[in-house]
Parts: sequence; C-alpha cells; structure tokens
Amino acid sequence: MRHEFIPDHYHITLGPHEPVLSVRSGDTIVTTTVDARGYDHRRERITPRGNPQTGPFFIEEAEPGDTLVVRLDRVEPNREIGWSLSAVAANVVDPEFVPSLPASEVVEWRIDQEKGTATLLSSAFGSRSLSLPLEPMLGCFGVAPARSQAISTATSGPYGGNMDYRGFVAGTTVYFPVFEPGALLFVGDGHAVQGCGEICGTGIEISMDVELTVSVLKGKTIGWPRGENDREIFTVGCARPLDQCVQHATTEMLKWLTADYGLDAVAANLVLQQAVRYDLGNVFDPAYAMVCKLPKSVLQEIAG
Amino acid sequence: MRHEFIPDHYHITLGPHEPVLSVRSGDTIVTTTVDARGYDHRRERITPRGNPQTGPFFIEEAEPGDTLVVRLDRVEPNREIGWSLSAVAANVVDPEFVPSLPASEVVEWRIDQEKGTATLLSSAFGSRSLSLPLEPMLGCFGVAPARSQAISTATSGPYGGNMDYRGFVAGTTVYFPVFEPGALLFVGDGHAVQGCGEICGTGIEISMDVELTVSVLKGKTIGWPRGENDREIFTVGCARPLDQCVQHATTEMLKWLTADYGLDAVAANLVLQQAVRYDLGNVFDPAYAMVCKLPKSVLQEIAG
Amino acid sequence: MRHEFIPDHYHITLGPHEPVLSVRSGDTIVTTTVDARGYDHRRERITPRGNPQTGPFFIEEAEPGDTLVVRLDRVEPNREIGWSLSAVAANVVDPEFVPSLPASEVVEWRIDQEKGTATLLSSAFGSRSLSLPLEPMLGCFGVAPARSQAISTATSGPYGGNMDYRGFVAGTTVYFPVFEPGALLFVGDGHAVQGCGEICGTGIEISMDVELTVSVLKGKTIGWPRGENDREIFTVGCARPLDQCVQHATTEMLKWLTADYGLDAVAANLVLQQAVRYDLGNVFDPAYAMVCKLPKSVLQEIAG
Amino acid sequence: MRHEFIPDHYHITLGPHEPVLSVRSGDTIVTTTVDARGYDHRRERITPRGNPQTGPFFIEEAEPGDTLVVRLDRVEPNREIGWSLSAVAANVVDPEFVPSLPASEVVEWRIDQEKGTATLLSSAFGSRSLSLPLEPMLGCFGVAPARSQAISTATSGPYGGNMDYRGFVAGTTVYFPVFEPGALLFVGDGHAVQGCGEICGTGIEISMDVELTVSVLKGKTIGWPRGENDREIFTVGCARPLDQCVQHATTEMLKWLTADYGLDAVAANLVLQQAVRYDLGNVFDPAYAMVCKLPKSVLQEIAG
Repeated sequence: MRHEFIPDHYHITLGPHEPVLSVRSGDTIVTTTVDARGYDHRRERITPRGNPQTGPFFIEEAEPGDTLVVRLDRVEPNREIGWSLSAVAANVVDPEFVPSLPASEVVEWRIDQEKGTATLLSSAFGSRSLSLPLEPMLGCFGVAPARSQAISTATSGPYGGNMDYRGFVAGTTVYFPVFEPGALLFVGDGHAVQGCGEICGTGIEISMDVELTVSVLKGKTIGWPRGENDREIFTVGCARPLDQCVQHATTEMLKWLTADYGLDAVAANLVLQQAVRYDLGNVFDPAYAMVCKLPKSVLQEIAG
Repeated sequence: MRHEFIPDHYHITLGPHEPVLSVRSGDTIVTTTVDARGYDHRRERITPRGNPQTGPFFIEEAEPGDTLVVRLDRVEPNREIGWSLSAVAANVVDPEFVPSLPASEVVEWRIDQEKGTATLLSSAFGSRSLSLPLEPMLGCFGVAPARSQAISTATSGPYGGNMDYRGFVAGTTVYFPVFEPGALLFVGDGHAVQGCGEICGTGIEISMDVELTVSVLKGKTIGWPRGENDREIFTVGCARPLDQCVQHATTEMLKWLTADYGLDAVAANLVLQQAVRYDLGNVFDPAYAMVCKLPKSVLQEIAG
Repeated sequence: MRHEFIPDHYHITLGPHEPVLSVRSGDTIVTTTVDARGYDHRRERITPRGNPQTGPFFIEEAEPGDTLVVRLDRVEPNREIGWSLSAVAANVVDPEFVPSLPASEVVEWRIDQEKGTATLLSSAFGSRSLSLPLEPMLGCFGVAPARSQAISTATSGPYGGNMDYRGFVAGTTVYFPVFEPGALLFVGDGHAVQGCGEICGTGIEISMDVELTVSVLKGKTIGWPRGENDREIFTVGCARPLDQCVQHATTEMLKWLTADYGLDAVAANLVLQQAVRYDLGNVFDPAYAMVCKLPKSVLQEIAG
Repeated sequence: MRHEFIPDHYHITLGPHEPVLSVRSGDTIVTTTVDARGYDHRRERITPRGNPQTGPFFIEEAEPGDTLVVRLDRVEPNREIGWSLSAVAANVVDPEFVPSLPASEVVEWRIDQEKGTATLLSSAFGSRSLSLPLEPMLGCFGVAPARSQAISTATSGPYGGNMDYRGFVAGTTVYFPVFEPGALLFVGDGHAVQGCGEICGTGIEISMDVELTVSVLKGKTIGWPRGENDREIFTVGCARPLDQCVQHATTEMLKWLTADYGLDAVAANLVLQQAVRYDLGNVFDPAYAMVCKLPKSVLQEIAG
C-alpha cells in the first residue's frame, strides 16, 4: 500500500513519540522533509532548527528484537536553493590551526535537477564558479532508541540518527534494529550534496521529497545500522573516537558474514581483511560515524 | 639518469643511515624490495622481519626544508606466492568481541599477474575459492625523520613510513618533507592486494620490483606526506586516534589549497567542505593513517 | 524546609519526567536510592536494573539558563551487603589482553559502618581477606538534559548522569546547568567504595540514605557539572575519548576562573597550568569522565 | 660505588648513543641536567633546546630482557630561576575555545629552596602573587628504545621518555624494560613544580642536581615503566588517546600483580577494581601518559 503523508509537526529527538501514521510491512510512504533549520520547500521556516524529523511512522509488524528494512526509493530536493556553512569545523583541523579558520557563514547553492548540479551562489572564487554533481541523501534518519530514550537529532547510535553518510541515497536499502513497538521511523536532514565527514557541519542542506518502502524481518536482531546497494553491503558504527566507530562497524560486519552468508569465523575474517573498504560518515557531531563495506561481487564468489 | 640498484642489506628503522646510492633530482631508481618478513623473490629469507626497507637513497639536491617528490613508476610483485595473516586484529573489533576472533595464522595466496588476480590457497571456503584483483602497492616507504630520529618501520609520521594506504600504487606521485641532507629515501613492504585499514595487520605481503623517479622541490616545505594521481590530490595524516589523523590531513590539505592553488581561506574551506573524500590508511599499527582527497576535476574548475 | 520523600517508582533515563516532589531553593530532601540493579535496603528487587533513579525533584525557582546547586549532606549505605562485578572490563585493558581476563561474576562485600570498612565475601585471597575503607558516593545523578532529551542512566553529559566520580561524597557541593523548568533532579547508583575509573563497571553497589540541600543560582549559566569541597573546586567533562573529557573540563575551569574569580585570561591560564590536578571518573560507560581540580588554597592566595 | 659525572654534551633522542659512563648494578650516579631549552645552573645555554638529556649511562649487567631499576635519590633545582610557558595548550581545551587562549609567553619563577616555594615573577595577579610548593621531579628520562630506534625526547613509550609525571620525585624507584646492552639510561627535563598533564607544555623548567642509584633485575622482563614509593606501586602507559594509556597501564598492573604478588587473575582483578587510582601524566606531547596506582597498604593486606 502507498501512503502519502504531509507532516504538520516535527521532532528534534528520536524517541517514543506519538506516531503520525501507521503502516504495514511492505507499504510505501511518500512524504516530505524540511531542511536542517526547519525550512520547507517554499523556503519558509515552519518548525525550529535542529534536523527536524518527519514521523514517527509506526510499522505494525515491528517489535523489539526485529529488524526494520527501509528502502530509499526517492530522495529528491524539492526546491531550488540549498545552503551550507562556509568554514571547516574547529574539531576537524589541528588545534593550533583553529585560529586560521575563517568565520563560518551561511552560503547558498542553486540546485539544478535537470543538469544534476549544485552551484555556489557566492563570489568566493572570483570569476570562476563552483559546481558539484547532485548526490541527494538523507543525513539523519532512524528509529526510536533503546530503553525509551529520546535522543537529540544532533547525534547518532545503534538506532541510526545523524550519521551523515553519503551512501544514504535513493536505491539504498537500510536495516535498523527495532527497540520500540512499531519501530517508530523518523526521516529528515536532506543534503543535495555532502562531502565525506560533513566537515563544516552541513552538507548542502535542503528540503526533500522522500519515498520509502518499509518491511520487517521478524525475529532478526542486529546491533548497528546495516545497508546495501547494487555494489556492496555495509555496516555503520557511531561513536567517538573514529577508532571506536571502526570497531563497531567491523564487528557488526563479521557478525553479518557468519550469521547470514554461511561463513565460519575463519572465512569471514579472511574475506574481510583483504576486501574491506571503509567510508567516513560524520566527523562533526557528538558521535562520529564510519562505514565498513564489502563488495557484493566478492560475496557472490564465496557464499552459497 | 637510470640507476639499477640491487640491495644487499636492509633497515627496520627509517633514520639517518648510511646511503646505499646517491642520485640526482630527476633520476630513476630501479630496485627490489623484500616482503614484510624479509623474504625475497626466491622466497628465501635474507634479512630479519619487520618491514625491512631498501635504501636509503641520497638525493643530492635535497636539503632540510625542501620537498622530495617520488613518482611510483612501477610497483610489481616479483614472485608467485604472497602471504597474509588470517584474523582481524584485536584492536579493530569491539573489546567484548575479541575472544570471538579466530587464531591468526599465515595463509598463502597465488599471484597471477597475467590474470591480475590473487587467489587464496586454503580450503577456508570449501568448494568455493576467493580471488581478488591485484592492486600492488607499497605499505611502508618514506624519508629519514626530523631531529635525527631513527623510527621503527612499524609506525608512521610526517616522514611517511608504514602508512599502508591502498593509493600508493604505480602511477602515483608522492611528496615528502625533507628533514635530513639528501632526504634519505627508503622503500619496502609491498602488498599485492590490501583491504582498507590493513585490519589483520598485513596485506598480501610480497617482494616487489620497484621503479621510482625522484625530484626535489627546492625551498618548498610541507608538513605531511602528499600525493596525487590522475584523478585527485591527497594528503596523509598519521597518528592515533583516527580523529587526529583527520585533523592532520585536513589541515595539510587546507594549507596546500591556499599556498599552491591560489585560493584564499574562505574559498579553500568552501571547496573542501562539499567535495572532500577521506580514505582509511592503517588502523593496525602504533600510528593510524587517514587520507584527505580532493578531485582534480573540481580543482580545475575553480583554480587558475 | 526539610522534605522526607519515600520513592515508589524509579527512572532509567534522565529526562523530562513527571516530578515526584516540588521543593524550593534552600530546601533539604531526605530520601533513599536503590542499588544499580534495583535492590532496596532490604535487598529486595523493587524496580528493574540499570542505575534506577529516585526523582525527579522539581525545584521551583529553577529555569533554563540557571544553575542548580546540590549540597550532598548525607550519602550513607542503608544495608549491610554490597556487590560488585569481579573482572576488569574489556575496554580498559589492551585488546590483546582481553582473552586473559577472568569471567566476570557478582561478588559480595560486607559493609561495616562502625568500622568504616567494606570486606570482600569471597575466598579469592585464600586465608587473607580484602577490606577497604568506606567512601560512600553517588555514581549517577543529575538533571534533565537539554532539548527535552531522555538519556539512559548508563551514560553522562553536561547534565551529569553516570559520572562515577569518587569525589561525589557527603560534604561536596555540585552545580548543574538547568535545561528544563524546575531542573528535575535525579539521584541514584550509590557506591560504598569505588576505584578510580569504575574499571570493572561497578563500585561496591548498594542502596543508600541520601540527604541533599538544593538551591538555585538565578541567571548563572554553566556548561558542565562543577563542584567544590573544603579543599578544591572542580569541573567534570564527559565524552570519549578521555582526551575530550580533559578538553571539556579544562575549558569549563578556565571559564569559571575568569567569570567568577576576577582573573583575566592570562592569570587564569597561569594559575591553572602549574596547580591543576586531574581525577579520572568513569572509563567504563559510553561516555567517560575526567575531573579538573584546583586547590582552594591557591585560589585564596590570588583571587580577591 | 659512587660516580660523579659532569656532562659535556647532551642528546635530544633516546637511542643507542655512545655511553658517557659505565657503571655497575648497585652504583650511584651524581650528575646534573640542563633545563628543557638547554640552559644550565648558571642560566647559560650550553646545548640546543628540546629536553636535552644527560647520558647515556651504561649499566654493565643490563641486557635486553632484563629490568633496570633506578632509584631517584636526589632531584634538586640547582639555580634560582625557573621558567614556564604561560598559556594552556590548544589541544587541551575545546576546539572552539582555542581562539580564546592568550598568546603563550615565557614567564619566570623564583625558586626558594629554603622556603620550598616557586613564586611567579610577573604582575599577572596585580597586587597578589602566586607561590606554589616546590615538588621537584624529572619530566623526561628513560632508556634506549627497542629495535635500535632513536626517538625524540618530545615523546614517550615503553622505554620511558617524556612522561611528565608528577610522581617522579626523589624517593621514588622506577623500573624500565631493557632493550639495549647496558640499558643506556638518560635523564633530563627537570621541573621544580608541575601541574598534572603539563597542560601548557612546560612545568617550571629548571636545571637540576640529580643523584640516582641503579641496579638490574636479571631475567625479569616488564612491558612498561613501573615505579614505587612509600605509599604505592604504579605503572605508566604512554600513547594517544588517553584511553589507550589507561589500557597499557592497567594491563601492566594486572601482569605485575599476578607475576610478583602471588595473586591469581581473579584476585588481581578484584583488588584492582576497587582500590585502583589513576594519575594523569602528560596531555601535551605526541604520546600522552596515564599512571595506574595501587596502595601498598592494600597489597600488604592480601599478598604474602
């Protein structure tokens, strides 16, 4: 079933909030998200800043201990102007270099969906201009955390949240552990483009049209967000320092390989060691994120 | 000028050791490296283990404060069998998961240069077999460190060393700060294939035929290793935790953009924030490594 | 005014929960806490595990932006048996050493308030016995966090929480930033004794009789928990890694010295650099804690 | 035997340098150290800056795999003026706070050994003055590292080096692993006073008269520096982040307790968990340091 949902309020924590819509496993939700400061497709502020989230959506079959599957069918900017902060964040450069950073200001980018570009609207490059290919993604989305917590959309954890991973584009399927009845899915914080690490604290922030299809893996328990696309499977670890993100994501991948791909511990270790790739999610927020990836081509070769 | 050099001894520290060959800026060195445990192309151990290095090469024009340029012309396995350790390292998984790691053993891989593959010689995958595309690279190379230090080839720093970055393949140009007269270039620790992070502590370790062309940028001072290939420029930061690697590499990239690409601080921050990519070097050794990259296509658009 | 409050339910998050009692600035609250697993003074489990908190207490004058002052008048075990886990946690030892840790079991300790000792009830030391001096403290207490979050009592932050600092004994005054109307003070997780770092994940866990006097500093805004006793003032930073705890606590101390002790930045830096002491709070939980201290004797010498 | 040794040159790396004096196990060495910038007791610069070290001393019985014992008999400033830097280091405060740090300048302190005080010679405190009790200690000392490395006196490791621990005062006995024949002991970097963490990058730097007695534990191998005084035994871990220092120091302490105090793993874990204290060494240098301590009173109670 396909649900069109127009939000009239938003949340800046992921938690056990009142569901806005109840859907069933297999259903598709078509909705919108505001940008990180609460501006909608008309560039009007309709809710306070802080990665406001659309939702939560209640998925009827989902119970604690299950896994929620979210296929991102469409993630598409729904206005022509995005914005970003201009300066790299203080925590991303050497402490002694911090005073050399410029003041951070809001700059705007023109989004041209036909050409597939985001073009900086500033004279920073003199007679040159800076255009980057659109790669629309969701910065912050996830489910209600464990233990009935309500956690700020500034950070991330096993429940997802503000992971700011460039891989969360349309066509990707994401898996979340379920901690609350109905899972309580939230989505928001769209980026038209984002560098690895979200090192200035923003991508090119924009409101989005979002379409996603949810389903439930009953009795399947996972520890951290997982995902896949045509080319690879991946796991996400969120923490500080990045070393700990690597630990979480790598452990989760080893567990995945042994539980679901018919590999024993030795085989899982062998294939991961030489074929693994890591991507950097967020290095700006309270919790950073690292992504551990394995190519599907390798998996097809070795796993039944 | 082209020098063919056959080493007869090796070093397990990068330091102010007696040069084995003196060359001039612009010269090419053709030589060989043994594998991480000191085995040569005949699979005979000819020197003790520990990433033994060929060199040091003295580059006549290089003085402290200059930059040494090393173009990797050829990095090619010179035997048919490589080896790796089998288990992911304890520091790369969650502490509670460490007891679930299998014992680490040496496994061998057949290197087929014609097919361009490395194939695991073990029955770990039952009737299936694991083959990975060859991507020969140098794990450990660099120059003599600052302050007349002699530092173990197990670790890395501003002088290079054991960075274990998959990007150090033939066709890449690498830049090192010069700390000692003659720079004193060392090379070793070839990997036929390596996953990101070298998470089991080895790539597929193998002896190599190496060809490299050196030159000197007089009076040009840099802070950390830099590099470039056809697609991108990059900087390398080495430290622990990975957060600090990110800080070093990002700071070095911002300095590069403002010093050499005609960008002011605002422009450098703007382009880096949305176009940056990060790669993971080593997460096994005493110092980890992260690489900060910027596509040349973006630079060509904005810089004179 | 003095309030005697007997709790009939507990919370395992610090958040904007319904107050159990409303008091005024200057009032004293006399109450009890259960131990970390929800056992009371009779050693009966009356609520689920996880550092269950008594409260929240609503302090009438407290509004966001103010500071809540909590003087710990009494922190006293109210039963004779405490317990701890027996093994050091995996994250506190070298990753390679993890398999050498013994299995962690619950051990019991006899609390003798007259003698002031906790004595291990186990034969681990053969004919010898292990007795340690009682130093009763609160492991987890604090106020409702910013942004209407509800955060697990397993972790800590600017609002306090599971800091596990040995300095939170009777006679100490603690300052918390106020984020919610009424501040919403929670208390729990008493330890009869605790080593620095709470390295096995527990102190000697016990239920407590607690007496505390609250007051409000109107219009005074602080960034992290602060405290003082007869000998010193201190600040608490919570994060991972410990380096970041040091950064938070040191920054907060420098702000305190300049805002409240009449020192300019140069003087504050000068006195802190040579007179500072650091204590380790928690190195077990999701967020670790470090404490930055300055002797009052030094402050009296230099500050008006 | 007692050796008086007047140095005529110094080292800024710990490494396999030519010994300046050969002594036997049980001998006492009386010597001097210059301050961190190479100034001697007359306040004349006699060697370049960078924690210049007196030594190395060759201890005849010491061979790799042994332990060198160094009792600090006397550590005493030998001039009246010490100096420090004035500003807290950028890496010790929140990244966003870095621009609020004052410029760092050299300030001087008057050392009065009779009164036992160091008094700031600056008008930073207006009509007040800042005096601190003398606690003379060695900031940087140790032995030649493993693998014939020569490592800068700016950092630290299993061989000791720039640990900057306030506990290295006269009366303390320190244990170092031996990596080179003769151990090759270096001493330097005296501080008349030092705050925990050496957070401005200096203590009150001063030249010293030093007296120390060395001996060798044949066949006794340790992993990290250890020490003891009248009250406690301790281990030192050096790394980044501080979390890893805690891991090294705690692991070393557990090994010590089981190897030398007759405790099994369970008993060692039990006593450490509730009786451990941690001190902060350096949080300024490339490698930080943490110290893990256990009171001797507790050990006497439980160990034969």
